[in-house]
Amino acid sequence: MELIYRFRDTTLATLALTHRSAGKPNNERMEFLGDALLGAIVAEMLYETHPKATEGEMSRLRAQLVNGQALADVARQLELGDRLKLGSGELKSGGFRRDSILADAFEALVAAVYLDGGFEACRDTVRGLFADRVAALPRSSKDAKTRLQEWLQAQGWPLPQYELVGAQGEDHARIFDVNCVVMEPLAITAMGRGSSRRLAEQDAAETVLARLLDAKEAP
Amino acid sequence: MELIYRFRDTTLATLALTHRSAGKPNNERMEFLGDALLGAIVAEMLYETHPKATEGEMSRLRAQLVNGQALADVARQLELGDRLKLGSGELKSGGFRRDSILADAFEALVAAVYLDGGFEACRDTVRGLFADRVAALPRSSKDAKTRLQEWLQAQGWPLPQYELVGAQGEDHARIFDVNCVVMEPLAITAMGRGSSRRLAEQDAAETVLARLLDAKEAP
Repeated sequence: MELIYRFRDTTLATLALTHRSAGKPNNERMEFLGDALLGAIVAEMLYETHPKATEGEMSRLRAQLVNGQALADVARQLELGDRLKLGSGELKSGGFRRDSILADAFEALVAAVYLDGGFEACRDTVRGLFADRVAALPRSSKDAKTRLQEWLQAQGWPLPQYELVGAQGEDHARIFDVNCVVMEPLAITAMGRGSSRRLAEQDAAETVLARLLDAKEAP
Repeated sequence: MELIYRFRDTTLATLALTHRSAGKPNNERMEFLGDALLGAIVAEMLYETHPKATEGEMSRLRAQLVNGQALADVARQLELGDRLKLGSGELKSGGFRRDSILADAFEALVAAVYLDGGFEACRDTVRGLFADRVAALPRSSKDAKTRLQEWLQAQGWPLPQYELVGAQGEDHARIFDVNCVVMEPLAITAMGRGSSRRLAEQDAAETVLARLLDAKEAP
């Protein structure tokens, strides 16, 4: 499959596909810009397609779509491996097949489209490449407490405890603070806040899930 | 100072300034989108203004510009605190002065401008607000090894050790692998790679700095 974009300035495309092992200039700076653009364009797609999802859910869905392995898959679909410029060491060790190198090149290519054609061209290209992947995401995901519980169970680890640590405000506008305590081996405690105890627990579970995601642990 | 943007649909601006303590709908979902857009627009500014900066340097500079405290400052400059919609609990406890609430509202407002006026309007607005801040950044920063060393010294901690762990490729295209070992209390080891030992060391130091930044430790 081809990238549905025709470069005016092909030197930008070439630079995007030049790995640092091939010397300088290379695609590392473009990768920084492309990563940010990709994050914004995919964020907008999720914002549109998942109107009920919370911020935490959208973060997790985006991480699924733009993690290194997922982007390497997109890069393979575009057959970027054949067009990479690599140094001789990486060439011999098969760098054109490596997820991280492919993912970085794809991100750099997103920046190249932006620099060459502007935001709308970049957005159209990314949306075209990710439309099916976004459509394949679950529509309404399970709530945070359920997801955390199921994942801990799957690891054979103890289930989290929820402890009410405080409540403030008048009766008609109470705010509840709840700690979600996850035992060893994770040993994470996170506070949640909400207008009911149940919402505060969901909020705390959401925070634990976000930390696990940051640590690339799951779920 | 006013936001240099006039909304066509003012409900978007109102939603952007509605904190979750005021109920639903609130600005949490918009904040997700705004955070991503802001990251991309500021990335582009740094890409343009710091043509010699590495990816790691641009990441760090961006984190300086868009961290919670920096965004709260922008929000105060725009006097967003007076226009926030907060629940009664947050109102009483002075939520309109809190960095996190102000920063989130600013991010949501960036998304509101995008949704109302499109990317160029959003980009112009953000660039206007950040131009002076970007111009005030150091032009060429110290190299990664120097920054890491100075920061460790300032903490009174031991200096990192660099160990050559391997070299591959033919003489004219050698690739060096170096470990940067940071002792207790940090206890971080990171590998770097480069076409010279010196570049591999810089690369390894850069990776350590990136991890410290992820862990919000510094420098």
